[in-house]
Amino acid sequence: MKAADNPTLARKIQFILEADKLKTITRNTLLTDRSRFENAAEHSWHAALTAVIIFDAAGSNGLNLAHIVRMLLFHDLVEIDAGDTFCYSAEQRQTQMRREKEAAERIFGLLPDQQAEELRRLWREFETRQTPESRFANAIDRLQPLLQAIQTEGKTWRQNRIRKGQVVERMQPVKTALPALWGYVMELIEDAADKGYLIDNE
Amino acid sequence: MKAADNPTLARKIQFILEADKLKTITRNTLLTDRSRFENAAEHSWHAALTAVIIFDAAGSNGLNLAHIVRMLLFHDLVEIDAGDTFCYSAEQRQTQMRREKEAAERIFGLLPDQQAEELRRLWREFETRQTPESRFANAIDRLQPLLQAIQTEGKTWRQNRIRKGQVVERMQPVKTALPALWGYVMELIEDAADKGYLIDNE
Repeated sequence: MKAADNPTLARKIQFILEADKLKTITRNTLLTDRSRFENAAEHSWHAALTAVIIFDAAGSNGLNLAHIVRMLLFHDLVEIDAGDTFCYSAEQRQTQMRREKEAAERIFGLLPDQQAEELRRLWREFETRQTPESRFANAIDRLQPLLQAIQTEGKTWRQNRIRKGQVVERMQPVKTALPALWGYVMELIEDAADKGYLIDNE
Repeated sequence: MKAADNPTLARKIQFILEADKLKTITRNTLLTDRSRFENAAEHSWHAALTAVIIFDAAGSNGLNLAHIVRMLLFHDLVEIDAGDTFCYSAEQRQTQMRREKEAAERIFGLLPDQQAEELRRLWREFETRQTPESRFANAIDRLQPLLQAIQTEGKTWRQNRIRKGQVVERMQPVKTALPALWGYVMELIEDAADKGYLIDNE
């Protein structure tokens, strides 16, 4: 079978090559060795891995882990066009949804129609947080950078003068979806404020 | 719940932070924009994504895709200690298995015992290729860098004077596990040799 004879395969390959660009989208999270900022592709991997590791300790029973993992693998692809939105920037967040919707149209649209629609649906599920699996995935998406921020002594928090109340608010999905971890997460945040990684007021 | 009160959670978190180091392990594959070499974390993400996209077109029916994805997420973690082994270096490959076994002991050993054993078993399954899912995962692990090598006009192949026969041999798992793609892959390799990306002899 030649690729030219098989438009379905050709579209899948084109999408796989397009996905490579996510490796060049930089986030505001430092690696734990502080050598550089993390990119959105390796973040997606780390989030999927974190979901698998944390799953049985999160206090959320009966969820479909495979579905959560798949959501995390694909959740940031829209950033190839829309860029990474710094979660504490109100200005960037204002236009985020429109930019990301357009991106989902184009990027998933590279795929054969049925698969494109499946993945757009998966991305919308992640974004709208109406299912237990999407709430779990969103909580993991917030927990993973928190752990790295703590490990790097809140360097990017300090540079951006982030307040404790902002991080507590950002971590609310953890409270709902990973209830067994909420005490631990609040302990991390309180400790970070005590150490001056975060500004200690609301 | 405090982390200190919960050694199971503490070990999981330690493992998740350790996994971050995979982002600093460099492979011999260039990104498609040639800006830098890919790291093993983003490669793992891209391989897992490729498995999901290709699955229904690969000609392998009845496999457990979630298991394949999980194997790909964890297959390279041993490289945190063992480093990346260039697949065309006989010298590096000689000591690879011993180095990676030691790495699997240490890295998965950070986790609670039962989870550590589950992940070591998953890693061994990937390495020994005795199950259909592990053969599929290995084939994807080889297909993904092939696509990037072709896209970058075989730059690292040319630098390392790689022969067509070496790449055909390296891609044999695709023939077995993704039979519907074999014709396409051979077409890519023949075309690469015609263009001088590969040395055209066995």
